[in-house]
Amino acid sequence: MYLSEIQIRVRYSETDRMGYVYYGNYAGYFEVARAESLRNLGFTYKAMEDEGFILPVFTFSVKYMRPAFYDDLLIIKVMVRELPAARIRFDYETYNEKDELINTAETTLVFINKVTGKPCAAPAYFLDALKKFF
Amino acid sequence: MYLSEIQIRVRYSETDRMGYVYYGNYAGYFEVARAESLRNLGFTYKAMEDEGFILPVFTFSVKYMRPAFYDDLLIIKVMVRELPAARIRFDYETYNEKDELINTAETTLVFINKVTGKPCAAPAYFLDALKKFF
Amino acid sequence: MYLSEIQIRVRYSETDRMGYVYYGNYAGYFEVARAESLRNLGFTYKAMEDEGFILPVFTFSVKYMRPAFYDDLLIIKVMVRELPAARIRFDYETYNEKDELINTAETTLVFINKVTGKPCAAPAYFLDALKKFF
Amino acid sequence: MYLSEIQIRVRYSETDRMGYVYYGNYAGYFEVARAESLRNLGFTYKAMEDEGFILPVFTFSVKYMRPAFYDDLLIIKVMVRELPAARIRFDYETYNEKDELINTAETTLVFINKVTGKPCAAPAYFLDALKKFF
Repeated sequence: MYLSEIQIRVRYSETDRMGYVYYGNYAGYFEVARAESLRNLGFTYKAMEDEGFILPVFTFSVKYMRPAFYDDLLIIKVMVRELPAARIRFDYETYNEKDELINTAETTLVFINKVTGKPCAAPAYFLDALKKFF
Repeated sequence: MYLSEIQIRVRYSETDRMGYVYYGNYAGYFEVARAESLRNLGFTYKAMEDEGFILPVFTFSVKYMRPAFYDDLLIIKVMVRELPAARIRFDYETYNEKDELINTAETTLVFINKVTGKPCAAPAYFLDALKKFF
Repeated sequence: MYLSEIQIRVRYSETDRMGYVYYGNYAGYFEVARAESLRNLGFTYKAMEDEGFILPVFTFSVKYMRPAFYDDLLIIKVMVRELPAARIRFDYETYNEKDELINTAETTLVFINKVTGKPCAAPAYFLDALKKFF
Repeated sequence: MYLSEIQIRVRYSETDRMGYVYYGNYAGYFEVARAESLRNLGFTYKAMEDEGFILPVFTFSVKYMRPAFYDDLLIIKVMVRELPAARIRFDYETYNEKDELINTAETTLVFINKVTGKPCAAPAYFLDALKKFF
């Protein structure tokens, strides 16, 4: 398993009139978690896009157990539990400062060749970097 | 089943550098779909909140089949398939202007009493209005 | 002067923990107002981009007199007061349902040729359509 | 003058189909800059709200000289140039990784007593903390 952990400070713009982080804003947090987990491997999501791979999200699901609030310093654990092929799955757990699990989530993304618009295999260097963790 | 249909024009702010509607922005679209489906029943989500009910989202999942693009006029069908108790489930289908299904989704929301912070039953007038469709 | 008027219903995702529309979200509303004012002229912002013109915002300023709230149906008046050259200025007035002026704003956008990345003149058909109002 | 400097990594969700950071998203960045500049003084924006002060934005203006892009690590300098009374003004300068100035901005916020809804003086401890820099 490949595990990364990131911290995100809740912004005012991300709260709603209930005082909670708006449920849709976690999608952006998880994106940041994915990007940072790649950076920890030694390369960037941006570089992958610039090389011609795009990774649109295919499925996304969240279970919200507790709300998060303005200025909370959240910890997101992001996990790749299986070596990716044409798809890659990330699992997430979000914790608040009291170390309470506030939600769990998962996304599946598809590797797409930007030129052909067709699904393709993950870049070899990415698979090589991940393999060390399996 | 209670079915409503709404139209949403994709805003520039909702696109990302792939040129797609950012995957997290559909959460806001589905919220609009829920709010409008209540309005079609003769009352508003806002009034329910003002009366002391909040409805945080408990689960949310989406399957993205096709992207949507800037200025697309999307059609979202929102369905309540079962009479709610302490929870209410909404199902969604999003279509583009070519009438292609671009994603399907579902959310489960929980009725919470704002004062006690505890789950509670849906307001009686809401259940009465829904019952006609079942 | 060229004047258009649009309606925007405030979404839950656009509110913040004060219960107000987050101050940054008006930028998106004004973008919608600009897009709709072009549509009223008979063409679209999207088509202009597809033809090779991009219009990044150069200056943006707002004066917030009153807040807007969830589910408010806002009216935005958008005005072009001078025929554009390499730049185009839009002025905005936002009103709530009580017809109270809640903010005023202005944006200046620059016509950029997508291929060269350089400022350019506004498309001729756009100027022709606008001229009728001056 | 009281000066703080913060770093913000551009998120995918903050880009638009031009590939730029959407012009409205800087409002959220500047909010983060304000919050961190208060934290550097030894207290939080959140605590001020919890104590009964809200600080809605009264005026906001930006001049965009250059775009920012996905994954850029931006530096925002935020400055308080005058001791606040009932209003506080923040000035901002945003730089990219090449140390190019990409925009300048300013916001004026008003201290409001949450209970009365009326403008009020800034909290004494806040003024005391700021005074050291003037």
